[in-house]
Amino acid sequence: MKFHYPNGKKFIPLQQKTTSIKKTKDKDGTYGNRGMTLEEDLNDTNAYYLERQIAVIHKKPTPVQIVQVDYPKRSAAVIKEAYFKQASTTDYNGVYKGRYIDFEAKETKHETSFPLKNFHEHQIQHMEQVIEQNGICFVIIRFSTTEEVYLIEAKHLLHFWNRMNTGGRKSITKEEIIEYGHSIPLGFQPRIDYIRIIDYLYNPSSY
Amino acid sequence: MKFHYPNGKKFIPLQQKTTSIKKTKDKDGTYGNRGMTLEEDLNDTNAYYLERQIAVIHKKPTPVQIVQVDYPKRSAAVIKEAYFKQASTTDYNGVYKGRYIDFEAKETKHETSFPLKNFHEHQIQHMEQVIEQNGICFVIIRFSTTEEVYLIEAKHLLHFWNRMNTGGRKSITKEEIIEYGHSIPLGFQPRIDYIRIIDYLYNPSSY
Repeated sequence: MKFHYPNGKKFIPLQQKTTSIKKTKDKDGTYGNRGMTLEEDLNDTNAYYLERQIAVIHKKPTPVQIVQVDYPKRSAAVIKEAYFKQASTTDYNGVYKGRYIDFEAKETKHETSFPLKNFHEHQIQHMEQVIEQNGICFVIIRFSTTEEVYLIEAKHLLHFWNRMNTGGRKSITKEEIIEYGHSIPLGFQPRIDYIRIIDYLYNPSSY
Repeated sequence: MKFHYPNGKKFIPLQQKTTSIKKTKDKDGTYGNRGMTLEEDLNDTNAYYLERQIAVIHKKPTPVQIVQVDYPKRSAAVIKEAYFKQASTTDYNGVYKGRYIDFEAKETKHETSFPLKNFHEHQIQHMEQVIEQNGICFVIIRFSTTEEVYLIEAKHLLHFWNRMNTGGRKSITKEEIIEYGHSIPLGFQPRIDYIRIIDYLYNPSSY
């Protein structure tokens, strides 16, 4: 039986939900990340930040162009025809100590470089606009085969994007990511502690 | 014939789009607001802020729970079954001079008070979380019959919400809105210049 709390949502204690997914043991007995996508890890991380009042950061809903909606009697409206729209911004934003936080997260199966085609022109434009407004803007990149996660400030991404647009390579090499980015060790709670890197970069005294 | 620019979107110059809607003349010869919803006015305003590099503020997409998607050959994926989800945050957020901006916009046909049922419990919770993180959080309210628009800081809304939850009235009176809120005169460009109020409240020296 499911209990429904006043907000109409099934109540799932965060702690429990997180732990049950994480306790998938690998063959060698270590707790693995099997089946957790970068998005799931970041949603868990953001839920952790929210619960502990560390930061308020949410993933934006997937933008959808709604064409046809049915309104059946005595039940919820049903969307019968809709299409995926391209997002005009990055996927995640929110607030940390009054500062605006904005980022995009992407994973790749490549092992020696990160292809820039993972980003869209309008996302790059949005990052430029956020930097112009003095917001904190970055990307989180995961190499899925090695589970390595890096935070790269948007200013560096823009540099590599411009290199591509002026005839240069269409990817960032792993060496460049290591040099310009910041490795985020995969943790237990939170999973991907990117706020720690933000503290290091923007509030060094609190680090 | 429609020209499609590289991003696949029909190109509509902002200036032109805005003006054509606004030039609907009322019978008495003044430029009226006929047919413009509060959301349209705010989208126009945010487009104006973005274009002039004043602020980067976007409306979040409507959250939708996608159940079934068809992938026809040689054409775009079609969502065949989906449902509207309740938003877990407010509708608008972004960055202004490095600060995090967050707000919800609502209009009412009532003339002497604003019913609090226009907000949901989880939106109120989100506002509390944003205030806790030192973000700038408010609501924009329009009385549709008189076209009056007010900005009310979230801290005041929380006060009225708590009054309701301890047995008090289920609305904010017009007098209270005038006392605690800030009237935003309807302009030509931008339509609803709420950043001017934010400057007055948070950057008085630049006002």
